[in-house]
Amino acid sequence: MGAAEIYRSMDGRDLRLALDELYADYTNCLDEGDFERWPEFFTDACVYKIIPRENYESGLPLAVWLCESKDMLKDRVVAIRQTSMYAPRLVRRMVSSIRVEGWDDGVLRVRASYLALETPLDGATRVFNAGKYQDRLTVVAGRLKFKEKLCVFDSALVPTSLIFPL
Amino acid sequence: MGAAEIYRSMDGRDLRLALDELYADYTNCLDEGDFERWPEFFTDACVYKIIPRENYESGLPLAVWLCESKDMLKDRVVAIRQTSMYAPRLVRRMVSSIRVEGWDDGVLRVRASYLALETPLDGATRVFNAGKYQDRLTVVAGRLKFKEKLCVFDSALVPTSLIFPL
Amino acid sequence: MGAAEIYRSMDGRDLRLALDELYADYTNCLDEGDFERWPEFFTDACVYKIIPRENYESGLPLAVWLCESKDMLKDRVVAIRQTSMYAPRLVRRMVSSIRVEGWDDGVLRVRASYLALETPLDGATRVFNAGKYQDRLTVVAGRLKFKEKLCVFDSALVPTSLIFPL
Repeated sequence: MGAAEIYRSMDGRDLRLALDELYADYTNCLDEGDFERWPEFFTDACVYKIIPRENYESGLPLAVWLCESKDMLKDRVVAIRQTSMYAPRLVRRMVSSIRVEGWDDGVLRVRASYLALETPLDGATRVFNAGKYQDRLTVVAGRLKFKEKLCVFDSALVPTSLIFPL
Repeated sequence: MGAAEIYRSMDGRDLRLALDELYADYTNCLDEGDFERWPEFFTDACVYKIIPRENYESGLPLAVWLCESKDMLKDRVVAIRQTSMYAPRLVRRMVSSIRVEGWDDGVLRVRASYLALETPLDGATRVFNAGKYQDRLTVVAGRLKFKEKLCVFDSALVPTSLIFPL
Repeated sequence: MGAAEIYRSMDGRDLRLALDELYADYTNCLDEGDFERWPEFFTDACVYKIIPRENYESGLPLAVWLCESKDMLKDRVVAIRQTSMYAPRLVRRMVSSIRVEGWDDGVLRVRASYLALETPLDGATRVFNAGKYQDRLTVVAGRLKFKEKLCVFDSALVPTSLIFPL
């Protein structure tokens, strides 16, 4: 039995635990600023989008961030490292309500809520952005990877300081 | 073995996973504004209350919301749909620290923390309300349902814009 | 097989569930203001620190809180009960992304994100402090206990109202 079959044959609870671990790793990677490791959570061909809920629900394709391959994610990381025009800050991501929505042809649909908190270097922590992850995952070399990750945020207001991934 | 016995015979961990799923479904239903599905999380005779912690702890019955049956929950949903006096907003609920407190005569006591975030249509996301769920659940037709759900919020200040369930 | 061996022989998922329970108990104890029970989550010899991330990462030992034994934790609780110079408030802790980092000689390394919310007696709930728990646990009399708990918060700003544990 290949790794993909192992995930597909998991009962709902083992799968949720595997997802708990994956999302904890994912947010931890970003919270620690370990951005070089971030593209490795995705498949080579992938979609990563940050999009306001209003656009998403009305079918407007307009995204605030759009990457369409792992290479584009890597380019983003290079850009983050080279940019110094933004005030230093830390972002922490809290995840809640991870939900398995089902499998379609070897692709797992998952949804979760996230809350991103922002802390400027000499300031207090504040709410930065909240929304939902709408993700599609597939198994590559025995590991679950994001084939598509949509960060659909609740505000219609685009956060000006959206420098780091969500 | 009936469904109720299956839940009661579950070890603590399987039960916690079943509760993780239930609370993820519950918050997802509300976060998506799928209010018509909300009463189905409750038993026909039920109690749903939103109450400030101070009142709760001093034994004052004064609740901000009080519904005493599934029909009253349904009436609430109709009222939400008919009301248009409030500014459009999204509410997102984060849940943490789900705790199984035990069974009493086929009723499961559960406690959790929640944080409700609010996003006005053209504004930024902010903290709206936080508190604890103090819930009593029972098994109906093979599924865990809320027989009582208390949303005990930390503030003594009643949120003026408490339009949607928590 | 002793209790320590049982935890060490648990697979990753059972261990994560045991940790979910432990952290839910821990935050619940503090959120309910049940401070006398708080030192019991620790081993007799232990380290409890609240430290700004900047100090932590630059290796500065300067902590905002430092306790080096369970007795010091108990002293802290006495101090909390005797102090009345602070405005009454409730603190609620949300935990996310619990990660098992591994065992070293019978000591389990765990990391998690926390968000502390603060509610003044007659005010609205707001973000108070956020950061990560960097914990080392060991098994004492069949139960996981904190041998070291570092609360590394994201801000360089020390919260003036840090009266209760995190």
